[in-house]
Amino acid sequence: MKDLTKEIAQLVDWLGEYGKDPNGGVTRLLYTKEWIEAQKALDKLLQEDGLATRYDEVGNLFGRLEGSKYKDETILTGSHVDTVKNAGKLDGAFGILAGILAIRYLKETYGQPLRNLEVVSFAEEEGSRFPYAFWGSKNLVGMAKKEDVENIADFNGVPFVDAMKEAGFNFRDESKAFRKDIKSFIEIHIEQGNVLENEGKSVGVVHNIVGQRRFTIDVIGVANHAGTTPMGYRKDAVFAASRMIQDVINKAIEYGDPLVATVGKIEVKPNIVNVVPGGALFTLDVRHTEKDILVKFTDELTSIINRIANDSGVEVKIDMWMDEDPIPMDQQIVEAIEKQTKETGLNYKMMHSGAGHDSQIIAPIVPTAMIFVPSRNGISHNPLEYTSPEELATGVKALIHSLYVLAYKE
Amino acid sequence: MKDLTKEIAQLVDWLGEYGKDPNGGVTRLLYTKEWIEAQKALDKLLQEDGLATRYDEVGNLFGRLEGSKYKDETILTGSHVDTVKNAGKLDGAFGILAGILAIRYLKETYGQPLRNLEVVSFAEEEGSRFPYAFWGSKNLVGMAKKEDVENIADFNGVPFVDAMKEAGFNFRDESKAFRKDIKSFIEIHIEQGNVLENEGKSVGVVHNIVGQRRFTIDVIGVANHAGTTPMGYRKDAVFAASRMIQDVINKAIEYGDPLVATVGKIEVKPNIVNVVPGGALFTLDVRHTEKDILVKFTDELTSIINRIANDSGVEVKIDMWMDEDPIPMDQQIVEAIEKQTKETGLNYKMMHSGAGHDSQIIAPIVPTAMIFVPSRNGISHNPLEYTSPEELATGVKALIHSLYVLAYKE
Repeated sequence: MKDLTKEIAQLVDWLGEYGKDPNGGVTRLLYTKEWIEAQKALDKLLQEDGLATRYDEVGNLFGRLEGSKYKDETILTGSHVDTVKNAGKLDGAFGILAGILAIRYLKETYGQPLRNLEVVSFAEEEGSRFPYAFWGSKNLVGMAKKEDVENIADFNGVPFVDAMKEAGFNFRDESKAFRKDIKSFIEIHIEQGNVLENEGKSVGVVHNIVGQRRFTIDVIGVANHAGTTPMGYRKDAVFAASRMIQDVINKAIEYGDPLVATVGKIEVKPNIVNVVPGGALFTLDVRHTEKDILVKFTDELTSIINRIANDSGVEVKIDMWMDEDPIPMDQQIVEAIEKQTKETGLNYKMMHSGAGHDSQIIAPIVPTAMIFVPSRNGISHNPLEYTSPEELATGVKALIHSLYVLAYKE
Repeated sequence: MKDLTKEIAQLVDWLGEYGKDPNGGVTRLLYTKEWIEAQKALDKLLQEDGLATRYDEVGNLFGRLEGSKYKDETILTGSHVDTVKNAGKLDGAFGILAGILAIRYLKETYGQPLRNLEVVSFAEEEGSRFPYAFWGSKNLVGMAKKEDVENIADFNGVPFVDAMKEAGFNFRDESKAFRKDIKSFIEIHIEQGNVLENEGKSVGVVHNIVGQRRFTIDVIGVANHAGTTPMGYRKDAVFAASRMIQDVINKAIEYGDPLVATVGKIEVKPNIVNVVPGGALFTLDVRHTEKDILVKFTDELTSIINRIANDSGVEVKIDMWMDEDPIPMDQQIVEAIEKQTKETGLNYKMMHSGAGHDSQIIAPIVPTAMIFVPSRNGISHNPLEYTSPEELATGVKALIHSLYVLAYKE
């Protein structure tokens, strides 16, 4: 196979110009000028590659290579074009560009596929401009609802609907049926973690996307003077919270991979050096690939937290505000990708995704799988996000092999 | 002795009108209109009581009852007239009003004392308007320096010196000698803690003001994606900080009273629910009445913190930015107060002060002691600050007995 290193590196740099901050980083929020320019540029690129392009109503962009035999069967690949604020150049973007490059290569090498091959540039996944995520993929599979976005606005007060219409798009016509032709979806993405890098693997074949539960734990003690209140008379919310954090994270370590538990945010009240804290609020993000274990762990942590609150004489309120089930990838496609990856000699790892992706929206409706490439130091959502051109090219090759099997084989 | 309950309650309410917030709380910041009006009202009250009044250069107000025999010996009592923002009516104010009431009672009952009796309304103690505390008492004993305040301003940018001059005051004339006549200083104050209340005592006889060491501990880990970073690959600053907080506070509990250690403030970076924290900065406030133990404890906690940092693979920076020695009260005066308190049948407790007071500034120069009255729920610096009129009156009685011994006895 020809070397795709230069091509993918050039494409990544090219798309990274849309929304580029002169101080580093890329910002392409949904329906902004930068976003519109990026979709237009991708549309032009797809047309130059000889693909038939179209937008759906909400602004997802598709490029299509018609199949010769199974004209009502489509193999879809791609990812999202939007970014977080001050993002890197790869999250989302790489999945679209790898898809474009893969279809270009397959067309040049093998000509017309048996099934339609399509690449999608999803309008939105990050939830970074409006308080709504997966707008692109949710519209593809019919999960997005008008009422979800009708009353939301961005940080400048611009209503979602106004931004969408100004960009030239609109709600999906709900009287029309959804497309039934998509037989498979494959998304290639940077890992956004450090597992592949640490284990020296080039490609991750993803068999599962973790389920997540998120909590806010509000520890209520009594604020007191730090000098005049003996230790025995205190109801110190920070001391109690520190015990909870330690015990919960130790319990997560005891459970072992793939369980992860994170206390990402703490807010202390009144947060003054010489006042015994009367309040300590912290968040807890727990993920696992198996729902049973996720439930068992979060039940246990609830007991741990309540016991410590009781021991410490503080009150506690535990609020679970997110509860998303794990999403398995399609076993047949995962096996096909694994087989191809093994046969072509790629140094791969079967793994789960700890982060959310468009694939988790699509997987319950359409057989779906994901491929990962390494992220240097696991950094993402940051201008320092980096994967070497060689590793990107290796990922594109894995995608090519997988799409070949799905689109060119009987 | 006559019942002083009504008188002290009325005086507290009367002075609480100066700077009163219609929504509750009192604010009398140094050299503000409210502060000037309060000092003028106190001046008038002292004159009505037949005392000779004068301001020193910076605005400390003194009311004097001349002694008959030891004319170069003065027994001083009082406290500060300024408050924090949205304060209660007692912190500082009670010490001035109790002094006024005590001298009024002594004069009415015993006539002229052998030594001069003076009450002082110190200009400032709280450090709430300008970043400088103890301006009043530091000027009394010659510790305040021009250069300390020449370049500071309040939160509205008003320079200290302008505010002082506009209020009609000025720097102390450094060519003049300090007064040498003050033989003793006694300050009565609310406890601002909950020890007297919890132990059912009416009066605290203070033998020591704690030393304090304050630290900022900066824990530096690595920020990572909360979903894609396995537990084993993390350098979680919050997890490490929670271990440090727990071990340090447990160690403080193990040391026992009077050691207190408080983590009052935590700042997490980036403080986002789904990001493994890369930074956790917390403050530590440690107090004890004995310098040796304070040093030993803070040495130990430094080892604890460094060991945990090492175990957790995070870096840590420990910055000690306050180091104040404990200040013992004058043993003879403390014993005299204790004797009087015992003989007059008051339900008292020998104790230390965990908070700072004007007395700690004066004690190294002039034999000094303090008397505490209970604070309901230990609350202070808050409109809910409260001591019952009966308890305030009991405190005034203890002060009367003490001043009697010091000013009327050979």
